[in-house]
Amino acid sequence: MLKTSIAPDGKEYPLPTAEENEKERLILEQITKEQRALGRKIVAVQGLGFVGCVMATVVADAEDSNGKPVYYVHGHQRASARSYWKVPMINTGVPPVSSSDEEVPQIFHRCVVEKKNFRATSEDFVYTLVDVVVVDIQLDATKPAFGEAEKGYCDLSAFREGIRTLGSHIRPDCLVLVETTVPPGTCEKVVKPILEEEFIKRGIDIVKNPPLVAHSYERVMPGEHYVASIRDFWRVFSGVNEKSIELCREFLTNVLNVEQYPLTQLDHTNASELSKVMENSYRATNIALTLEWAKFAEQIGVDLFKVRDAIRKRKGTHDNLLRPSLGVGGYCLTKDPVLANWAMGALFGLEGSLDVAIRSVNINDTMPLHTIELIKKVYPELRNLKVAVLGVSYLENLGDTRHSPSKTLVEFLRKDFALVKTHDPYVEAWPELEESVVEREYDAVLPEADVVVFAVGHDQYRKLKPEFVVSSTGKKPLIVDCSNLLNDDTIAAYKALGCKVKGVGKGHI
Amino acid sequence: MLKTSIAPDGKEYPLPTAEENEKERLILEQITKEQRALGRKIVAVQGLGFVGCVMATVVADAEDSNGKPVYYVHGHQRASARSYWKVPMINTGVPPVSSSDEEVPQIFHRCVVEKKNFRATSEDFVYTLVDVVVVDIQLDATKPAFGEAEKGYCDLSAFREGIRTLGSHIRPDCLVLVETTVPPGTCEKVVKPILEEEFIKRGIDIVKNPPLVAHSYERVMPGEHYVASIRDFWRVFSGVNEKSIELCREFLTNVLNVEQYPLTQLDHTNASELSKVMENSYRATNIALTLEWAKFAEQIGVDLFKVRDAIRKRKGTHDNLLRPSLGVGGYCLTKDPVLANWAMGALFGLEGSLDVAIRSVNINDTMPLHTIELIKKVYPELRNLKVAVLGVSYLENLGDTRHSPSKTLVEFLRKDFALVKTHDPYVEAWPELEESVVEREYDAVLPEADVVVFAVGHDQYRKLKPEFVVSSTGKKPLIVDCSNLLNDDTIAAYKALGCKVKGVGKGHI
Repeated sequence: MLKTSIAPDGKEYPLPTAEENEKERLILEQITKEQRALGRKIVAVQGLGFVGCVMATVVADAEDSNGKPVYYVHGHQRASARSYWKVPMINTGVPPVSSSDEEVPQIFHRCVVEKKNFRATSEDFVYTLVDVVVVDIQLDATKPAFGEAEKGYCDLSAFREGIRTLGSHIRPDCLVLVETTVPPGTCEKVVKPILEEEFIKRGIDIVKNPPLVAHSYERVMPGEHYVASIRDFWRVFSGVNEKSIELCREFLTNVLNVEQYPLTQLDHTNASELSKVMENSYRATNIALTLEWAKFAEQIGVDLFKVRDAIRKRKGTHDNLLRPSLGVGGYCLTKDPVLANWAMGALFGLEGSLDVAIRSVNINDTMPLHTIELIKKVYPELRNLKVAVLGVSYLENLGDTRHSPSKTLVEFLRKDFALVKTHDPYVEAWPELEESVVEREYDAVLPEADVVVFAVGHDQYRKLKPEFVVSSTGKKPLIVDCSNLLNDDTIAAYKALGCKVKGVGKGHI
Repeated sequence: MLKTSIAPDGKEYPLPTAEENEKERLILEQITKEQRALGRKIVAVQGLGFVGCVMATVVADAEDSNGKPVYYVHGHQRASARSYWKVPMINTGVPPVSSSDEEVPQIFHRCVVEKKNFRATSEDFVYTLVDVVVVDIQLDATKPAFGEAEKGYCDLSAFREGIRTLGSHIRPDCLVLVETTVPPGTCEKVVKPILEEEFIKRGIDIVKNPPLVAHSYERVMPGEHYVASIRDFWRVFSGVNEKSIELCREFLTNVLNVEQYPLTQLDHTNASELSKVMENSYRATNIALTLEWAKFAEQIGVDLFKVRDAIRKRKGTHDNLLRPSLGVGGYCLTKDPVLANWAMGALFGLEGSLDVAIRSVNINDTMPLHTIELIKKVYPELRNLKVAVLGVSYLENLGDTRHSPSKTLVEFLRKDFALVKTHDPYVEAWPELEESVVEREYDAVLPEADVVVFAVGHDQYRKLKPEFVVSSTGKKPLIVDCSNLLNDDTIAAYKALGCKVKGVGKGHI
């Protein structure tokens, strides 16, 4: 039976056969030879996820002073049923991610079809051919218990395997540039030793040829400036030795907009790895703080969002203050403090923990339960309560559902037997909660709703007329605003229509 | 026996007698009459502490479009042995606070001596004469146990008494503008009811004449821009009713630089009170987070200050990230989260607490113990260890010792029988730790020191040559840098001289 990989659009791609792989190796060799003849260096990007696939195009798109490509890029994705479809899709010039950034399809088309210096493959052999590998393997934190991030850990096995593949293939002078967000210590204590082991197995003298390992983290923001957030933004980097640092600086200088956004070099990969997880912990903590104050504000008649605006007037010292909402989602703020906390013990054998950051993750993870409390103030019994949840992505105006707080909201509502329908104009599929159909029409979720939860601040929801929402339900539903989506006028309009209104951080309602 | 009040410069002032007070009342009446004839409104400032005395001059200094003073200002300070000296001192045109801001003596001289529209008094009778009272009564949080800020409370009795004095004196149409940082709820639940009670006692119809109460908090920074930080900066305000809000806006518009720094009005005094304590809680939490990461960084060879610089490159989203140090001092960050947490239960009868903020206060309060841990890594036994602590103020280049973390450091070192000497070029007296002589000469603290702690980042300390420090001790002392005062070169120089060096957040040493 032929194994296949199914793309989100439903198209099936058979996984490559041994014979096809053999052909592929010849193709890879041939391409590489041709490209070297053109004076280009050869780069592989390992892992074509949210970061890797776009990073690969940014590298391919880099030009020298004569407007010629500096690099040829092989994107590598393993031939798994889950992800292989990305390889043939990319090779037609189509991005494997959907985005509101117009530059995404443009840059894929430009590199794959026009410049012809970016191509995807699933063949590990590719690593024997390259000067630089950019590691973009996905790496997640596992939280075994809800609201107990202190028990969270990081399963490095797939990551280790990916690095071992590199160690058994790359030339000793190939730079391994880790771009994945990793637990602090990973380059020094995981990547370097594995590469050394594999080099030794291959008879390479690691004293003469110590592995070249660097770390530089991206600060990608999926959204309207997806590509720019990788290319035109501040970068921090370091390496395990001088040569690694030098090669990494050269590579990033060629690839990124370092004139406008000069590079920041740190003394050690530990520092660069720590920097990434600390910057996200800073934001996670910041949000957790606001939730506590939101609860207080709600009980004393205060609109915390107006307070926040007042505080943020102090530019440079107070304008980073974030805001409360349904909860915290996405791939970074939910896991990065856990990676750091886990690394303390697991990679460094240290006692102690990052309490402030970890408690903040717990507050953030359990935040959606506060919205359920708001509902219960009006409907103490959730059983058979009809709830329309508007918004299931983790951020406004985006279709990304990774670690979305709406998932927690929906799951806990259903646990108490509420009848929940979900809606999101941006979401095509909700893989994290597959049993939930995400509707795109209001008609499919609003009729008969007892409660309408504005879970995410999509602009589209902001524009919804109270008359429309209320008449669509055919009731006087409870309106719950989790994202400061309703202003004082809209709230007054809902009340004039006989609705009760509640809101996270909105005590003045 | 004549009671006296002794100024910090040692000069004694006898407290006023009953006879003098009677004369003073006549003077106050006469002045006020004359000033009203000049078309000026009359303002009292209640409490001439760090904020009140400078705020009084800012009000007096305000001019109309013709360059004429808008207000006459009576500064009021109770005739206590502790504080009465401020009254006669101010009335000679001399500020009762020392400051590095040149504008402080200038504005006092200008208003008291030249414009003659600011004068201090200790006579409560003054409140019968005024249109506006600005309340600047000191209000502190009490933390009954070290490192247990959750038990902290706010003793409002002196504050209540001050407000009661106003209630029994002011005209019903006088605006009471609370500028003191107060627990959220204070204007509504403390100030307004007390004024109502006193009004009723005086036969005033509080339905026709509801007390006029507003709240607007300052954001003063003692230091080079002391006066400007009050006058030329963002202000938030609110009031308990429309009339209060209107009068408060008018007053602040006359007095402050609202063209460059427009006012922010909030819906309720609860909101404005909460805003102040939340903005300081934001910073307290931010610092607590960095301490945890500093400890981690120290153990894995990372310089957290360089990491911080790297993170702060992200302007607008990450540049508020603060830095670890010896600890957190001053009057605001140490107490404001406690005021808020206490108000939840005490003023609103609510359950719950502001955990993130309160835990942060605990981390910050106990932070100086971490510096002792650093010392113990080299000297496990503190008994008879000679420690020179350089810096006892709570902030660099400032003589303010209020809630200074150096106090905790010195106390805990002495508890373990270390022999501690303290030095600070800016500090004239250390009232919080009177048994400690604060030296101004290095010769008085460095000779024979086993440990030199750079506790505060005064510029003067930053410029100290390692050769000078080491030769002054006559030993190879352990150098402890709590404030990122030493750069990599200075550290190398100390090491070359045979010293060990440790530093908060400096794992690369």
